[in-house]
Amino acid sequence: MTKLEKTYVNGVDTSALLETVGAVSENPEMGRCEFRVRNEWVSGDSNRSNTQDFYAACAEHQHKQVFNFQAGEPTLLAGHDEGANPVEFLLSALSGCMTTTVAYYAALNGIEIEKMESSYKGQLDLRGLFDLDDSVRPGYQNIYIDFKIKTDAPKEKISEFFRFSPVYDVISKSVPIEITVETY
Amino acid sequence: MTKLEKTYVNGVDTSALLETVGAVSENPEMGRCEFRVRNEWVSGDSNRSNTQDFYAACAEHQHKQVFNFQAGEPTLLAGHDEGANPVEFLLSALSGCMTTTVAYYAALNGIEIEKMESSYKGQLDLRGLFDLDDSVRPGYQNIYIDFKIKTDAPKEKISEFFRFSPVYDVISKSVPIEITVETY
Repeated sequence: MTKLEKTYVNGVDTSALLETVGAVSENPEMGRCEFRVRNEWVSGDSNRSNTQDFYAACAEHQHKQVFNFQAGEPTLLAGHDEGANPVEFLLSALSGCMTTTVAYYAALNGIEIEKMESSYKGQLDLRGLFDLDDSVRPGYQNIYIDFKIKTDAPKEKISEFFRFSPVYDVISKSVPIEITVETY
Repeated sequence: MTKLEKTYVNGVDTSALLETVGAVSENPEMGRCEFRVRNEWVSGDSNRSNTQDFYAACAEHQHKQVFNFQAGEPTLLAGHDEGANPVEFLLSALSGCMTTTVAYYAALNGIEIEKMESSYKGQLDLRGLFDLDDSVRPGYQNIYIDFKIKTDAPKEKISEFFRFSPVYDVISKSVPIEITVETY
């Protein structure tokens, strides 16, 4: 029983995770993944996307259920505010990925995390989206992130994990991101 | 009444949208936006994010309601599959943004769209996330997108709109994206 309990750190089954890491290390083909989303436009600012199946570990898989997303735009962007807008979905993706990456990497390094919260601010200029100025990009110009983590590990150690986050990797190579980490 | 009806194209209130575009064109400060997301880790692969307030048009705003997101990981990535995983959220953000951008730009160009569906496939290699090979990035290596749009406009015209999508702008500057568009 002691052994079984010890495999869980931060709610992560480190034995299972290390088994997956080992399998990918031995056979790189096991690391190839394809994730998929389908989107159906409803009207105006409203559209719905979902994810159901994916490819990983050399096989096709189904999620336990279909996950659905409703996108919208606030009233001042000519929308009906029925869902978060897509640039908010992008920050949500970033937040989920950085959080999970820290939880997993900390677990694999034997670092216990009691609590973890983070906030994300993305700044953009509508002149890019509206094609009013060629020098202004449509997307985020800057993203600011604050992490608060209850752990005994130094914040420098935690900060080393962010770069392995797949969504952080994608966005940080396109948008300057500033991160502050506070541990307590 | 005729005039009122004509302001709506693709469910988009083009009068309202053009008013916003005009306001930003006259005063660039009106175009500055800040979108925000907060995230709270639950345990292991489970974390929850939400969005509630944002800054736009020189003022603070609240969404009509708080929008919540549950992130998870599938079982084979040591998760409990309680929500889409963050890289799927990223594709969802991309899908919502490209769809809304096409609906809005088409409306402003007087192009009617009857139906619009799209699918997204993102490929990544877990050797990046697991730090097994420095030459492999953690994030998507390629993204493939298929659009099917019921419209009289040529697909070349529709394709011109994608680059104004804020999320497309962010991701396409980091990941090679291949798009096919089929009109019918």
